[in-house]
Amino acid sequence: MKCTRCSDQAVVALPSHHAAFCAPCYLVFARRLVERAIKEHAMLTPEDRVLVAISGGKDSLALAWMLKELGYDVSGLHIDVGIPESSPIARGYAERFCTTQAIPLHILDLQSQGLAMCEVKKRVKRPICSVCGQTKRYFFNTFTLNNGYSVVATGHNLDDETSRLMANVMRWDTAYLSDQGPVMPAEKGFAKKIKPLFRMTEFETANLCFIAGIDYGHAPCPYSAKASFPVYKRLLADLEDIQPGRKIHFYDAFLQRGRQGFASAETTDQAVDPCVHCGYPTSTGECGVCRLRTMMKE
Amino acid sequence: MKCTRCSDQAVVALPSHHAAFCAPCYLVFARRLVERAIKEHAMLTPEDRVLVAISGGKDSLALAWMLKELGYDVSGLHIDVGIPESSPIARGYAERFCTTQAIPLHILDLQSQGLAMCEVKKRVKRPICSVCGQTKRYFFNTFTLNNGYSVVATGHNLDDETSRLMANVMRWDTAYLSDQGPVMPAEKGFAKKIKPLFRMTEFETANLCFIAGIDYGHAPCPYSAKASFPVYKRLLADLEDIQPGRKIHFYDAFLQRGRQGFASAETTDQAVDPCVHCGYPTSTGECGVCRLRTMMKE
Repeated sequence: MKCTRCSDQAVVALPSHHAAFCAPCYLVFARRLVERAIKEHAMLTPEDRVLVAISGGKDSLALAWMLKELGYDVSGLHIDVGIPESSPIARGYAERFCTTQAIPLHILDLQSQGLAMCEVKKRVKRPICSVCGQTKRYFFNTFTLNNGYSVVATGHNLDDETSRLMANVMRWDTAYLSDQGPVMPAEKGFAKKIKPLFRMTEFETANLCFIAGIDYGHAPCPYSAKASFPVYKRLLADLEDIQPGRKIHFYDAFLQRGRQGFASAETTDQAVDPCVHCGYPTSTGECGVCRLRTMMKE
Repeated sequence: MKCTRCSDQAVVALPSHHAAFCAPCYLVFARRLVERAIKEHAMLTPEDRVLVAISGGKDSLALAWMLKELGYDVSGLHIDVGIPESSPIARGYAERFCTTQAIPLHILDLQSQGLAMCEVKKRVKRPICSVCGQTKRYFFNTFTLNNGYSVVATGHNLDDETSRLMANVMRWDTAYLSDQGPVMPAEKGFAKKIKPLFRMTEFETANLCFIAGIDYGHAPCPYSAKASFPVYKRLLADLEDIQPGRKIHFYDAFLQRGRQGFASAETTDQAVDPCVHCGYPTSTGECGVCRLRTMMKE
């Protein structure tokens, strides 16, 4: 198998792109996917100060690495969610990567906020993944806005995005469908959010880490066994096998033609007023994280 | 396993409905699914003269049987498409069923119209399934309108409808999405079309035939090997195994919330003027079937 770009020996085959690449050309290919995503969706300008949400997994490290490669002003924020079995390991990957790459890294420790997820899990009734996700979004948002960053970037890849899209479509959840996309503009007290890896599959970000020599954490969160998106990831993987390119076409066509149909739907973001305690946008007077704080103190 | 209705020995388990039924109660269950479809979507009134499109397969025979059971004024139209390997067999099933059930059956023979599909297949370049489908829709429409029927009913089941919906969603084909549903009103020179079996799966219509003693044709069309919907049928079957009830929820939610988002999309039906030869609505001056006739005479 020969490299599609330089005819050297290829190390990776990408049927979805009808291509194969050697290691150096794979990095060029990946770089172009990210550049295209950024350009097509006006994600970044050279003036932006970008905060990358760094979990320590393949996607977040590939994202930080690539944005730095592309010359953007990048810092990282790692949120240590306080799960004894996994958080110290994830934090270690984030810290070692940022040290090696000379990327400034902020650490926000939920334990110090009285919100360690191992403790929260004992008290809340709703699924812990939902609470943890909400809490992380809160801190990524507030940290971005309070520390002079203009945009927060997350490592969501094509598999994350298409499986979420499929889940939303299967329920025809018009509010979520109207909101979904690779860019959320800064509005109503929320920071601008971007997903520059949305054109890359999980396999492609893992491969980027492998070729770029990035050492990342593999262990899944011990609390996430019941997440429902894996069902749709598997289903879309089956479809991609039969129809190479299906995932990116599904997502691109949604952005081009599908999403606008839901524009009039009530959005998920009903936030209009600042939280009475912290000022975070909320539709319920007291925001979810302040409610969690109150509950944890009781 | 006991019958959910009468606690007798069940003969069929339906995980999607969290139910199991004995033979007599299964017929009650199936009847209610069809009654619900008809009522919810205002498909029929007792005054309607219904023409059922009868292919001779399980769905069309189950449909004709059930509509007669429900007391509607039902006749059948079988279109003999003129494929030597399969058409005589299908026609035999349609004729024997209608004789047994005392349902008036019209036969329209494409051979006599110079449009036998075995000959058409040799001349056309586009996929024969598309040409055959277009031709059948033409004759179902014109026969309905020209013979005093008020509505044409087809045996499309839940698997047909959801696999088509999934195919349309994967491409975000907004024109097809805006058109899809269990009822197409009479408009622009087209007859009203209904799909009263849309709440029943393939398994459920086959089971209805089995329990009601309806003998139907099993053989797939020898020309249809390359149809793409089976991919989505299999995918939805996998999903239904994991999430029982998913198919009907997917379709119901589309009708309730999803479809309206595409209402403003250009529809597939661009027909505004009558065909110069036959008067059938078309957007191209001469309708597809008249073009086919002309081509076959050349």
